[in-house]
Amino acid sequence: MKNSTFKNLRDFPSSQLRRNYLEDNLKIKLSHIAQFSFDEAKLIGKNIENLIGATQIPLGIAGPINIQGQKYFIPLATTEGALVASINRGMKAINLSVGVDVNMELVGISRGPVFKTSGIKHSQKVKAWIKSHFLELNELATQTSLHIKLLKVDFESFGKNLFVRFSYDTKDAMGMNMVTIATLEIVKEIEQKCQVSCVSLAGNFDIDKKPAWLNFINGRGRKVWAEVVIKKEVVKQVLKTTPEKIAEIVYRKCLLGSIASGSLGFNAHFANIIAAIFIATGQDLAQVVEGSLGVTTAEELENGDLYFSIYLPSLEIGTVGGGTKLPSQNEALKILGVEGEGKADEFAKIIAATTLAGELSLIASLAEGTLASAHQKYGRGKL
Amino acid sequence: MKNSTFKNLRDFPSSQLRRNYLEDNLKIKLSHIAQFSFDEAKLIGKNIENLIGATQIPLGIAGPINIQGQKYFIPLATTEGALVASINRGMKAINLSVGVDVNMELVGISRGPVFKTSGIKHSQKVKAWIKSHFLELNELATQTSLHIKLLKVDFESFGKNLFVRFSYDTKDAMGMNMVTIATLEIVKEIEQKCQVSCVSLAGNFDIDKKPAWLNFINGRGRKVWAEVVIKKEVVKQVLKTTPEKIAEIVYRKCLLGSIASGSLGFNAHFANIIAAIFIATGQDLAQVVEGSLGVTTAEELENGDLYFSIYLPSLEIGTVGGGTKLPSQNEALKILGVEGEGKADEFAKIIAATTLAGELSLIASLAEGTLASAHQKYGRGKL
Amino acid sequence: MKNSTFKNLRDFPSSQLRRNYLEDNLKIKLSHIAQFSFDEAKLIGKNIENLIGATQIPLGIAGPINIQGQKYFIPLATTEGALVASINRGMKAINLSVGVDVNMELVGISRGPVFKTSGIKHSQKVKAWIKSHFLELNELATQTSLHIKLLKVDFESFGKNLFVRFSYDTKDAMGMNMVTIATLEIVKEIEQKCQVSCVSLAGNFDIDKKPAWLNFINGRGRKVWAEVVIKKEVVKQVLKTTPEKIAEIVYRKCLLGSIASGSLGFNAHFANIIAAIFIATGQDLAQVVEGSLGVTTAEELENGDLYFSIYLPSLEIGTVGGGTKLPSQNEALKILGVEGEGKADEFAKIIAATTLAGELSLIASLAEGTLASAHQKYGRGKL
Amino acid sequence: MKNSTFKNLRDFPSSQLRRNYLEDNLKIKLSHIAQFSFDEAKLIGKNIENLIGATQIPLGIAGPINIQGQKYFIPLATTEGALVASINRGMKAINLSVGVDVNMELVGISRGPVFKTSGIKHSQKVKAWIKSHFLELNELATQTSLHIKLLKVDFESFGKNLFVRFSYDTKDAMGMNMVTIATLEIVKEIEQKCQVSCVSLAGNFDIDKKPAWLNFINGRGRKVWAEVVIKKEVVKQVLKTTPEKIAEIVYRKCLLGSIASGSLGFNAHFANIIAAIFIATGQDLAQVVEGSLGVTTAEELENGDLYFSIYLPSLEIGTVGGGTKLPSQNEALKILGVEGEGKADEFAKIIAATTLAGELSLIASLAEGTLASAHQKYGRGKL
Repeated sequence: MKNSTFKNLRDFPSSQLRRNYLEDNLKIKLSHIAQFSFDEAKLIGKNIENLIGATQIPLGIAGPINIQGQKYFIPLATTEGALVASINRGMKAINLSVGVDVNMELVGISRGPVFKTSGIKHSQKVKAWIKSHFLELNELATQTSLHIKLLKVDFESFGKNLFVRFSYDTKDAMGMNMVTIATLEIVKEIEQKCQVSCVSLAGNFDIDKKPAWLNFINGRGRKVWAEVVIKKEVVKQVLKTTPEKIAEIVYRKCLLGSIASGSLGFNAHFANIIAAIFIATGQDLAQVVEGSLGVTTAEELENGDLYFSIYLPSLEIGTVGGGTKLPSQNEALKILGVEGEGKADEFAKIIAATTLAGELSLIASLAEGTLASAHQKYGRGKL
Repeated sequence: MKNSTFKNLRDFPSSQLRRNYLEDNLKIKLSHIAQFSFDEAKLIGKNIENLIGATQIPLGIAGPINIQGQKYFIPLATTEGALVASINRGMKAINLSVGVDVNMELVGISRGPVFKTSGIKHSQKVKAWIKSHFLELNELATQTSLHIKLLKVDFESFGKNLFVRFSYDTKDAMGMNMVTIATLEIVKEIEQKCQVSCVSLAGNFDIDKKPAWLNFINGRGRKVWAEVVIKKEVVKQVLKTTPEKIAEIVYRKCLLGSIASGSLGFNAHFANIIAAIFIATGQDLAQVVEGSLGVTTAEELENGDLYFSIYLPSLEIGTVGGGTKLPSQNEALKILGVEGEGKADEFAKIIAATTLAGELSLIASLAEGTLASAHQKYGRGKL
Repeated sequence: MKNSTFKNLRDFPSSQLRRNYLEDNLKIKLSHIAQFSFDEAKLIGKNIENLIGATQIPLGIAGPINIQGQKYFIPLATTEGALVASINRGMKAINLSVGVDVNMELVGISRGPVFKTSGIKHSQKVKAWIKSHFLELNELATQTSLHIKLLKVDFESFGKNLFVRFSYDTKDAMGMNMVTIATLEIVKEIEQKCQVSCVSLAGNFDIDKKPAWLNFINGRGRKVWAEVVIKKEVVKQVLKTTPEKIAEIVYRKCLLGSIASGSLGFNAHFANIIAAIFIATGQDLAQVVEGSLGVTTAEELENGDLYFSIYLPSLEIGTVGGGTKLPSQNEALKILGVEGEGKADEFAKIIAATTLAGELSLIASLAEGTLASAHQKYGRGKL
Repeated sequence: MKNSTFKNLRDFPSSQLRRNYLEDNLKIKLSHIAQFSFDEAKLIGKNIENLIGATQIPLGIAGPINIQGQKYFIPLATTEGALVASINRGMKAINLSVGVDVNMELVGISRGPVFKTSGIKHSQKVKAWIKSHFLELNELATQTSLHIKLLKVDFESFGKNLFVRFSYDTKDAMGMNMVTIATLEIVKEIEQKCQVSCVSLAGNFDIDKKPAWLNFINGRGRKVWAEVVIKKEVVKQVLKTTPEKIAEIVYRKCLLGSIASGSLGFNAHFANIIAAIFIATGQDLAQVVEGSLGVTTAEELENGDLYFSIYLPSLEIGTVGGGTKLPSQNEALKILGVEGEGKADEFAKIIAATTLAGELSLIASLAEGTLASAHQKYGRGKL
């Protein structure tokens, strides 16, 4: 595609005309990208620009899974064979035991500006001012949205740099947009009152869409846990292995192997499951990065059964806003029964439980005696 | 959804019947999920199980972007407003300068089994055996696929654990499936010859789909770099800021802010761009985790122009296999001109260049004097 | 030394008899180890067992250094040539400017037990109980020592593991002993009231004597900062380089180089200076590990002068207890004027200021045009 | 100490006159610091400047310890009560079993300069040049010392920065001085031949005296391992606990607790033991930072005995040069039987074995049922 004079794609009035232009210029056909059912006009400027169509991700269904007595079907969007089947197998083992227990703790979504101060004394002054004006700053935040509340403020500083991490409750929205706008108002106030300049409203002390120990240790969004006890007979019949072998793999792979690699992920494949749910339900896919941080543990109990648990310290999700209103994504949330307000906590727990199911099943297939056959049965490369 | 007797969703013969079942039971409509243009029969067992339809991700187009004299349109799938427009703005600034320079280095995709040995002496013996049988092991690998070659073997060991990282050239495939099968054969040989047991074919020394210093430091898949010099006038006119301010934000946010957060990502939002390309082109979305590791640097040159660069140490991508054959994804690869064999190197470079464009534009919008208006112009929360 | 029958060295009544035994058996002379001036009887069971004598570390003196108007001589114990001279040169540059500014924040020393719970629900219950009994637990702590106060409690949990980090104010003692005893009482109470078992009183959530992001991000002991503005003429005359070059080395070495290495130390050689002061003053030398974490930043100011700063997030020190009562160490504290009670805050600031001086001087010598001559002048290997 | 006019301490001709000056000015007595047996004149300019005397660190003796059939007494310098006794107890348990097995691998000591290039293409060119001139560069290195050999070269680059890690065999010297001088010659050649400027001869890609994943993953100095099998009866009688409890503490504390803390140290207290040996034998104390990185593992064997191992990936030590010639330090090396040339490998193994003994004993005391009494027996705070 050389030496052509391209028009500005922004100026085309519709996705069809953009596709036509690309098809003509590139001598290709975009007949599948042209297939979509959402209303083009509603998305523009909200979810996308320069629209040419849609990417279709195959959507499978797993479940039901028994989560604390409640049953859920789980929509999973993926292009990798065996993932849905594998998660489903994990759910079967869970359901034949007592179901998954889950727990959740709201940490809040954060925005972390960086201020340039004159040095360490100035940084301390600004820090002290912010601490003593927490209520007023929260007031400013709440004026930008009815759904926001400032939960806490953390600091880091060195040299001429002051980093401030504002963490908010944003109800059922993932909330990055809300907290950006709220933090902007707060930052303006700080700049004025403390004679300090904000270099960047987002100063990577948030820290958003990057793997970081800050989020692992102090959490972001929601911390969620899931655990299950699987009877040894179920481990044998459904998972084709033993609690002892599963515990050993978690120990040698998820703990020691991740230590050997300098990782922040002490698990087998959280990211596969998190990504599949995030795509299906209109979450921010870049947040798979921190959403998939966490730890898997497994222990053989004294009675020979298997204790299996997962922990996600930094799960940022929403049931309103962002991509959740897109038609196919919204339907997926309805399958889960968590569409709309008042549902984010439940959604977080479902994600944790599903992650556990997927983690359990993969580790079991790694534990099976003949890896080759496991491989053929559960797809190529599903490790 | 309580107390129902669920059928096994695997047993339904089509996505439509599964949808019907869910619709009936959950009292919902899945009319958008039902919209897809791929051939259901071709996907089953390869890309998905328990299919119920598709998730439609809005697909936008950015570009063209001038990469070393070649021009490319970039398909980007996302649900977040402003992302495509922002990347597009970055490309405009790049094109008004001299275009992007890119560089690439093949590291290879790895599989890292963990063996249980009797202790440190045994580990050393197995390690020595593997080192001295590199050619034979490569021979075993090549028998599993014509497209695979063993590049190198790395080791870590402690206690009764020996971790071995086999890195392969897998040509234009991302290759996790291929290297899993190849490594299985290698592992069988090692188990037999060294009297040692492999606990897990994937021992997290790969390390796949988890953020890890091992991949940052030693690389995985491909290492790619992109850089550009933007004239100060272009920075002013297109990006509405100055080289000095951009350099300062990169310094205080991407370097110092990420240090303050204990991060492995020294950038503004690589993950947004990587995720949008990965979705559009059928890549493995869980690999956004390590694909978005890396460093942004910016410096004001002596003549006042801006030097801007990005580095992705662990980009795992393919132009064949996996999700690349899905119809809409395949069309996106054709838009890029990198569909099929012999194209993965070029594709990696395009991703690096696009990441640079998106990174540049976001940092510029953070640098603009009035953050509020930047905010309104470029969407809510696009930081 | 084969096939000898060794007596139990514990049973020898004096260091001299132990030396004699070793000398006879090993056919060596220990005449220098025999040289010490402390009272053997006073140390036994408190600072050492199986005493055979002393290791003599050469002690140099640097300074005076002007810290916020106050002048201090700094005793430094080291075996590496050029270190004292280099630190001294940094002090000279500092004194010719306006002296060092310092700042300090008490975080508290921590003990972090790990409890084995029945799972995530149990962990949450124990956590809730601890939170609601903070005052009672502090009461238990204060009964073990008049000098201790519980400042805060942090938690982490996954699987059957609950980690609790108790942080205490221990006045002028480094305090690990005090907080261990206090935490023991607290743990006993928790075990009894919450029906939970403590697996290890020290559960690495403290985290003591290991490098860790938890201490970097949340701090431990004391956070200390030091900064200075050095006139460009002084940089030229005393440090033989320019502010620009110093800023560039800090940028490319201390920031980018440490990023490239996956480090928690974003500095040139904090550990050299921290170790030299710790040895001289009887601190716990294993705590050099976290005491030397931190960040150096440098910027050329608009007027051409140099802004230079250092930050130590996890400095654990004391002016009473531990090795501070040993005669030569106690004299060193007296040289500093910080021996005994009420002095730990001042001592922490002095360490920060000295670290800055040493850091500045080394980076300056790296910046000097001809590295070879710098090398010869300031010793071999003092980089 | 205000408003005094201080003379330049460098100008005093002896440590005694410096002491007199400090004593007069500060109104203190330095009678203990005055006690030392080394020859002042021999140290100046080599190990110390501005000498005022010596710091005396109490020196204890542990052992003998059976290492692969050889027995060693271990000198340990510390100011913390219980450390020597605790290590000694670990040795007793080891000796009653079969002794420690050790293993060692030379990685080499590294110097890692940072070059400023014009960008990524230039960096690649320089990198290629260095790779293709390895032999010539080694030749340059060997001309600076008969005891040095270039082993390998590693690279990292982004933006205008090229980091090169030269790793050398320095025989029995720790070698930082030697490799600095050798690298200086290599760097001069590169600067001339590649038209590139070295910003800092030490670019933190070495990486020296800072905790870093690069050293953990790829090693530095020597990698050493130690392991032991302790009979369950010995665990019971000597260590007062069970293999099961020890394995559980290692699992919950050293692995999970360190994961919870974002640590690079997966052990209980390597740093205590490393520091005590380093002080006693004249090693570089700042290198305790990376010397104490590493992993402890423990497993209960099928027959009920305990398997216990430690791994030190980055142990930088020497038996010649540096502080090893100081009289008391040299005597300590003679106690170990590793003074002088040809002894560094053996010394590294002894350190690993001693670290294992200390690690085992502390974990055992944490495992003992009644922590309070263990506490009183083994000192206050020795956790």
